[in-house]
Amino acid sequence: MTKTVTISVAQATELSQEILRRTGLSAEQCEAVADVILAAQRDECHSHGLYRLIGCAYSVKVGRVNKEASPIVLDAAPGVVKVDADRGFSSLAYRAGIDLVIDKARRQGLAALAINNCCHFSALWPEVEPLAEQGLAAIALTPSHAWVAPAGGCKPVFGTNPFAFAWPRPGQHPFVFDFATSATARGEIELHRRAGMPIAPGLAVNAQGELTTDATEALGGAMLTFGGHKGSALSTMIELLAGPLIGDLLSLESQAADEGLGATPLHGELIIVLDPAVFLGGYLDANLARAELLFDAITGQGARLPSQRRYEARERTSRLGVTIADELYRELLVLAGRSDTEKLPVQQFA
Amino acid sequence: MTKTVTISVAQATELSQEILRRTGLSAEQCEAVADVILAAQRDECHSHGLYRLIGCAYSVKVGRVNKEASPIVLDAAPGVVKVDADRGFSSLAYRAGIDLVIDKARRQGLAALAINNCCHFSALWPEVEPLAEQGLAAIALTPSHAWVAPAGGCKPVFGTNPFAFAWPRPGQHPFVFDFATSATARGEIELHRRAGMPIAPGLAVNAQGELTTDATEALGGAMLTFGGHKGSALSTMIELLAGPLIGDLLSLESQAADEGLGATPLHGELIIVLDPAVFLGGYLDANLARAELLFDAITGQGARLPSQRRYEARERTSRLGVTIADELYRELLVLAGRSDTEKLPVQQFA
Repeated sequence: MTKTVTISVAQATELSQEILRRTGLSAEQCEAVADVILAAQRDECHSHGLYRLIGCAYSVKVGRVNKEASPIVLDAAPGVVKVDADRGFSSLAYRAGIDLVIDKARRQGLAALAINNCCHFSALWPEVEPLAEQGLAAIALTPSHAWVAPAGGCKPVFGTNPFAFAWPRPGQHPFVFDFATSATARGEIELHRRAGMPIAPGLAVNAQGELTTDATEALGGAMLTFGGHKGSALSTMIELLAGPLIGDLLSLESQAADEGLGATPLHGELIIVLDPAVFLGGYLDANLARAELLFDAITGQGARLPSQRRYEARERTSRLGVTIADELYRELLVLAGRSDTEKLPVQQFA
Repeated sequence: MTKTVTISVAQATELSQEILRRTGLSAEQCEAVADVILAAQRDECHSHGLYRLIGCAYSVKVGRVNKEASPIVLDAAPGVVKVDADRGFSSLAYRAGIDLVIDKARRQGLAALAINNCCHFSALWPEVEPLAEQGLAAIALTPSHAWVAPAGGCKPVFGTNPFAFAWPRPGQHPFVFDFATSATARGEIELHRRAGMPIAPGLAVNAQGELTTDATEALGGAMLTFGGHKGSALSTMIELLAGPLIGDLLSLESQAADEGLGATPLHGELIIVLDPAVFLGGYLDANLARAELLFDAITGQGARLPSQRRYEARERTSRLGVTIADELYRELLVLAGRSDTEKLPVQQFA
């Protein structure tokens, strides 16, 4: 069994901030990035949690990220906010533009936030969940690097192209999902490679276009989309809406621009925000109650809602701390400039 | 081999109009419904083509459809058009509201058309393709009747919940997809039942929650979503956005309201229209060209675009006519009040 380390959320936050500050990122970016990394780690989304600090630090080190990025907000149309992220991390650009797009959605019924020219590394649910907490519904889409072959093909064209959605539930955590349109997340394949473990069949092809379960071969070939031609169609839509629609790069283009550095993708993101109160007028409460009928019909037969595990993890980690692999923890200590042999905090499990 | 009949598009149109007129539907509804039925048949979407006339006629006969429906358009917000379909077919309500929502999208950047209280029977691509032909991108969603179980469950909750999308391609047919979030279309299962053929494994469970390939058992049990928990999440989103968000019924509710009649669902539909020209300002052409890079990367490796087969069929049927099963043709003749033994037109293949 992998050795693990458990640290408190406060300790994980401090460690994240230390690592990010040492990269030379501005204080604002450090805070915005650490926030989404911690949100993922608290919810036990390991592939987007503390592990991502390694990729973030690397992307800054190789010069892909503007350390002093200062996002520029453009009120582009009554329903459209554009934010130029100034080659900084997307999280800061999101913070810069989100209030204006919320305001527009409340007035128009729906509005879009287009983030351009951003380094993207995070899960999308931390961007839509807070919108649902404010009574809004939201969709978020982003391409990545071309790692995924279209249905019927064998060469990478699409990114892992996540699709996230949130819906407000009065008095409860929002309904939220966030899935990669690839058959698995690239981060998951990387974690398997690090652990020397095979991936499940049907997720990827090797460089010759043959199905493979070898994680290293898969990373050198192409992942497949989930759900065959339907997942492939959805992934195409995400490329179009979070690429050409907002004047930003396809996954193919962002990968070419990376020039083999293996840094975090630099491209765009689209968030569509809808205000049920505008659509429904005086019938808001009755229809939020109607949505609960749907959730009850799902959970009432023993099926889970997509966000359920994350909320359970959040509650647990807030009390017991976050647990990561010992090896990852030591790597993070080095990145933070601490000794990797320092006394391990809180608890250690064998 | 099934005996088939080939008739010209004009003959198919005339036959459709005859059948619809005999139901007592208003002239406007006859025309709107026949148009989408013919669009599907021309593109060889058999499950939404002439075959659907049987269901449409039945739904009128049992009193679910307002024959004299007169849709009411409400300018609900700067970004939202609501159309009360007045219990008529959705196609007429779409016609009533589409110009206003296009106008809004061109001014706001994006806008939504919410159709309420409509009888829905058609494919969604005939509603988004014309928008892309006008340079717009569009998403369309609708629930149906509760026939599909959520991931991890075995009782029907979702409809087949189609997701359609269109993107403009200058000088070419738009990029369009339209897929059921169920693992297959209910219409396909019905066609298998009619043909006495088994369905593929993994598409449905019987009333006891066990996987089945028997079409009749599947219709009495629950279909599954495509793509496991991801397809299930997407289907949940469609219920929420084309149900509670617009103040209309869930698939569970529309099925309950049907009271076992087996008529076409009566509920809502949501169409989101985005104008790339507003998002892109002076960079429209460069970004439409960028989208073509994506399509080239897909087709260049021998993979198909989702709409390709339909466009090929459309070209072919416009020259050669539409081909349907002999048995279906005779059934349609009866519905039209003609003799089912009349001389078969144009051609007959064995």
